[in-house]
Amino acid sequence: MENLLVTYQIRADADEIEARALGVAVEQSIEMPLQAVRDPAILDEIVGKVESVQEEASNLFRVAIRFSVTITGLEITQLLNVLFGNTSMQPDISLVDADLPPSLLAAFPGPRFGLPGLRALTGAYDRPLTCTALKPMGSSPDELAALCRTFARGGIDIIKDDHGLANQAFAPFAERVRACQAAVDQVYAETGHRAIYAPNLSGGPSALWKQTDIVRELGVGMVMASPMLIGLPTYDELVRERIDVPILGHPALGGCPSIAPELLFGKLYRLIGSDAVIYPNYGGRFGYSKQMCTDLAANLRDPWGDLAPAAPVPAGGMTVDRVDEMVDFYGVDTILLIGGGLLIARERLQEQSAIFVERVKRSAELR
Amino acid sequence: MENLLVTYQIRADADEIEARALGVAVEQSIEMPLQAVRDPAILDEIVGKVESVQEEASNLFRVAIRFSVTITGLEITQLLNVLFGNTSMQPDISLVDADLPPSLLAAFPGPRFGLPGLRALTGAYDRPLTCTALKPMGSSPDELAALCRTFARGGIDIIKDDHGLANQAFAPFAERVRACQAAVDQVYAETGHRAIYAPNLSGGPSALWKQTDIVRELGVGMVMASPMLIGLPTYDELVRERIDVPILGHPALGGCPSIAPELLFGKLYRLIGSDAVIYPNYGGRFGYSKQMCTDLAANLRDPWGDLAPAAPVPAGGMTVDRVDEMVDFYGVDTILLIGGGLLIARERLQEQSAIFVERVKRSAELR
Repeated sequence: MENLLVTYQIRADADEIEARALGVAVEQSIEMPLQAVRDPAILDEIVGKVESVQEEASNLFRVAIRFSVTITGLEITQLLNVLFGNTSMQPDISLVDADLPPSLLAAFPGPRFGLPGLRALTGAYDRPLTCTALKPMGSSPDELAALCRTFARGGIDIIKDDHGLANQAFAPFAERVRACQAAVDQVYAETGHRAIYAPNLSGGPSALWKQTDIVRELGVGMVMASPMLIGLPTYDELVRERIDVPILGHPALGGCPSIAPELLFGKLYRLIGSDAVIYPNYGGRFGYSKQMCTDLAANLRDPWGDLAPAAPVPAGGMTVDRVDEMVDFYGVDTILLIGGGLLIARERLQEQSAIFVERVKRSAELR
Repeated sequence: MENLLVTYQIRADADEIEARALGVAVEQSIEMPLQAVRDPAILDEIVGKVESVQEEASNLFRVAIRFSVTITGLEITQLLNVLFGNTSMQPDISLVDADLPPSLLAAFPGPRFGLPGLRALTGAYDRPLTCTALKPMGSSPDELAALCRTFARGGIDIIKDDHGLANQAFAPFAERVRACQAAVDQVYAETGHRAIYAPNLSGGPSALWKQTDIVRELGVGMVMASPMLIGLPTYDELVRERIDVPILGHPALGGCPSIAPELLFGKLYRLIGSDAVIYPNYGGRFGYSKQMCTDLAANLRDPWGDLAPAAPVPAGGMTVDRVDEMVDFYGVDTILLIGGGLLIARERLQEQSAIFVERVKRSAELR
């Protein structure tokens, strides 16, 4: 039987750490006193096993625990539960990493387009893709479509909804998506530049499935959703069953202080099929370090079973002035997302968008 | 226009706190620089407004922010996003509380049975209800059904699946639920005691809906699910559209993000229709304080718009010895859940279950 190897960081006194580690192994598997278990096969095969305990710093330990892959049921809901269900409520324990065995990995689609698919769709092969966001909420569908048109004329590759655009009265999903898709279609007819519009999907399953019907009907080229808001299992089903275009994962509600972003956004969001994943860049307003961003991007792009690479989309307070630095840091296999940093140009928005696009092309050429 | 009043706790230097508070107000509404906004109505009506800033301790502030209810779209996905979407990724900010205005509250079903409904179903009016769990995972449907029979014979009111029982190979949902429901039906026929069996629902929407079909077909009396695992919007739809029995909310994965348990488990889980909510009790292995448990239980039970009261289910390392203390602390309007603390009796499990039931009755009578 294959195993799942899960790494936790535990803050504890040195004389308690063995008991704490065993406590997590039990909590995340059978969650009952070992002496209450009557079947020796369960003690042997089902209860998690502490594989290693390493002291990282004073009273801070890295603990690796091995779980039988059987207990995950080979699907995302129970995988999440095994990784961190009850232990998420322990204030002194964080979930650091997980190594998934081949049988578990093979049960997931991973990105169906991934970075190669996004390159094929945009025709941009040798440079980072450019991305921006339609804001602010409170705008009408016509206003958002006008913005979309301006960005498309500026040459942006991907124009996504702000993640706060859901199905509110000021810009209902159907009207907004129709108007914005018409805008990118119009610019394509006029200029030959095909920008991809990615609306934000939001709601319970019925609402989401209705939104995907609209996406299909209008020929929308991409979608966005937030796995932690809609639930990872619902996102997983959305990808498997409901869309045939790339999906961009948004990190909203994903700032769980005790799950490493490298794991949540880098591995789990890729596992459930995100073709590109937005996350807070270092040096922005979220305090992510360069090392976290390097590791997160590696988790998204590095070879992993048969899964296609997903595109990192570092974001959060990015500006055109940082393009060279970003290309230098992430290389060309990335998507650069500038939202508010473009909108601040106001009347000069199309020009500023074009400058962003040119800066990215030039940065890539200079490498 | 009605407002949503949201309270955050922010760790910051005193000379930064005004800017940080404004930052959250903007992040959680329009998420773009204010100077980039062209429409004054959006600045006026859509951008969050800092209502108050109070210093709680050195460099620790309680900040109340007012958001227009319009931006929530009156549904749970976007409500969560407004409450904490991007700000969840700020390591020094936690979400403490939210006051929902009547129009928002009226958009949710809340508990359809609640504590009064659970009392009517069990016929237990003057005492806490008793609850236990079927464990460990790795057991076969027959083994779980045997356990279920023993608990039912002991007189337990509600017998729930362990939250780790999903649809794994060792106990597939359909077989397990059929066997366990047959067990409680059999004990009812034999003894006249109708224990309620509550299977754990788990998976993406399609899997969940299939499970609810089985629940309906077999006449199962209650279900359990973990909102943070399946996604709050999916849980909301499950309650509204798919079940006509009470639902027990499990806290798995709820320890993250940094949302006060009083709000997440006490208010939000009730809002989306939980009739009873499991959470870690004080004095167990999760470090919740008495004050947190008092406030959480109050949020579940106190009058709140037109919402029925939900039953608190304090759990986690509970034992029969603590029954008097628990009844003293929570009163009779509660559900006492003992899992491993009963199973440890092994061959004496039925007797120990009966002792638990008697202890609860006596404790309630003595009040």
